[in-house]
Amino acid sequence: MKKHIYIYSPSGAVRDKAAFKRGVARLKTLGHEVEVDAAALASHLRFAGDDDTRLAAIHRAAASGADVALITRGGYGLTRLLPRINYKALGKAIDKGTQFVGMSDFTALQMAVLAKTGKVTWAGPALCEGFGANDKADEADGHGPGKSLGPDDIMEACFDDMITGQGEGAGWRQLREAAPAATTSVAEKARPSMARDTFTVKHALLWGGNLAVLCSLVGTPFLPQIKGGILFLEDVAEHPYSIERMLTQLLHAGILGAQKAIVLGQFTEYKLVPHDKGFKLQTVVNWLRSQVKIPVLTNLPFGHVPTKVLLPVGAHVELAVERRDAFLLWGHHH
Amino acid sequence: MKKHIYIYSPSGAVRDKAAFKRGVARLKTLGHEVEVDAAALASHLRFAGDDDTRLAAIHRAAASGADVALITRGGYGLTRLLPRINYKALGKAIDKGTQFVGMSDFTALQMAVLAKTGKVTWAGPALCEGFGANDKADEADGHGPGKSLGPDDIMEACFDDMITGQGEGAGWRQLREAAPAATTSVAEKARPSMARDTFTVKHALLWGGNLAVLCSLVGTPFLPQIKGGILFLEDVAEHPYSIERMLTQLLHAGILGAQKAIVLGQFTEYKLVPHDKGFKLQTVVNWLRSQVKIPVLTNLPFGHVPTKVLLPVGAHVELAVERRDAFLLWGHHH
Repeated sequence: MKKHIYIYSPSGAVRDKAAFKRGVARLKTLGHEVEVDAAALASHLRFAGDDDTRLAAIHRAAASGADVALITRGGYGLTRLLPRINYKALGKAIDKGTQFVGMSDFTALQMAVLAKTGKVTWAGPALCEGFGANDKADEADGHGPGKSLGPDDIMEACFDDMITGQGEGAGWRQLREAAPAATTSVAEKARPSMARDTFTVKHALLWGGNLAVLCSLVGTPFLPQIKGGILFLEDVAEHPYSIERMLTQLLHAGILGAQKAIVLGQFTEYKLVPHDKGFKLQTVVNWLRSQVKIPVLTNLPFGHVPTKVLLPVGAHVELAVERRDAFLLWGHHH
Repeated sequence: MKKHIYIYSPSGAVRDKAAFKRGVARLKTLGHEVEVDAAALASHLRFAGDDDTRLAAIHRAAASGADVALITRGGYGLTRLLPRINYKALGKAIDKGTQFVGMSDFTALQMAVLAKTGKVTWAGPALCEGFGANDKADEADGHGPGKSLGPDDIMEACFDDMITGQGEGAGWRQLREAAPAATTSVAEKARPSMARDTFTVKHALLWGGNLAVLCSLVGTPFLPQIKGGILFLEDVAEHPYSIERMLTQLLHAGILGAQKAIVLGQFTEYKLVPHDKGFKLQTVVNWLRSQVKIPVLTNLPFGHVPTKVLLPVGAHVELAVERRDAFLLWGHHH
């Protein structure tokens, strides 16, 4: 189904112009009308233009009347713009049918929109890393024949589900060692049996995104005050100790305990060091489960990875878990 | 003056045993009685023992009756202990004369002690990196003859000032390009003249420490709610964009604007990348000055560097600035 997709840059400057071009071309190949914001390729220091430029770009995206407003990339730049954004205009655009899509730094805008308007935005790909993923199989770069190249099939299918309104949810399989609803102590080994971990959480508000960006909003007016929600989190290039420290902030701020479930996505591109002496991501997951009484799920296909689902941030969803299999459902029957 | 110094490990495990030994030996050489906590060299994953072990070590330090309770090192581990610490016991120890000294991860304990008891702790060196700094001039390790080795003279003099109660304050010279009390926009160049920037802030509560650790407490009960204070900040291995994002959190949380001055210490060991395109620490300082109406000072000799002053966190101090020269004063006449 042909859609009008508006491409803009609210955060970091686009450096990989080839990925940008591939992304635009890919969306056109999929049959969409692609409109590129005038400042999409602007550059000022690290940013895609100075604050005024990026702010205007966000407001142009809201005024575009597009079906989808898609960021070129994340990076850094949205948190400092938050007090100056016209949330009423964004809310109106969402009401008129514009689906705002992005991730990473975009989490800041998603949280602020949710806090200020209660409207739904979508956690999903950015243009460059998502639709602009390199689709040229080049043996010289070390990709074997089994390596997936180009835009990810699942991501594209989920994007199509979103734009057509046909999406009913997302399902995935949790990590084997990551038992949901466990109350393991740090020292305790992962339980072999997960038979009792079959449960459903109905009508809970789905929210979250990038852990570091979300934590950087704690204590500010731009983090929504969600009770009884389902909080999903991902991050990139953060060591497990840093992930744990951020989760500790959410814990001590009373945010984690107020939710009905925590869903951990992909945490990637960090480096363990010899001094960790066995302290790793699973240690953090086990610790988290010892600190909260709610289920902590793992392996949601969302994060800084090619294969990811699109998630309606601010929508009421159902979470259904049957041992390792988990489903987030937001179809019309909910 | 001979003092009783209690060495304990509330955070990361001591890996550099040689630095630990050098530190203990150095304190003895300075004439002190050094008592080493039973778990000072404990190791569990990244930590200096599991949570119970480190918690007990903190409480033993409080019960030691020592003149100084000095951490072996920072790292990570205190934030997760904060809800379980007996603040009454620490407050009582401080009343009886124990000076708690440390930095980095220790900022978490300092903030919590200030929030829960209002008592003064000291931002200062840790044993291993401070008193255990390598004092062997070894040409093979690349140190030239002009390179300072061993414990830093200024740090040791400030430590002596603290334990003898003779310290009256700390003075330093700000960076040339860093004008205090400026209201420059991001785009504006640093002002050549700083003639009007001579002012005094009297009787303001000094607080702060490591920026990342402090930010990780925002929204929790462990960050003191300080109005009209002087906030000092330092960090290590944080890129300027990350420093800016953290400052943005403090700004949007209303914390920066509620202070009388912000004093930036040393921000070290980060790597700029080509994509920064000129975005650097000074960019962040300029931006910060465009966002707040209070003075933003630079170059306080405190942080992850050898030459650092000791600062009474939670004490009322006077800040006197005469162009580039700045003084924090906490002598008896204030």
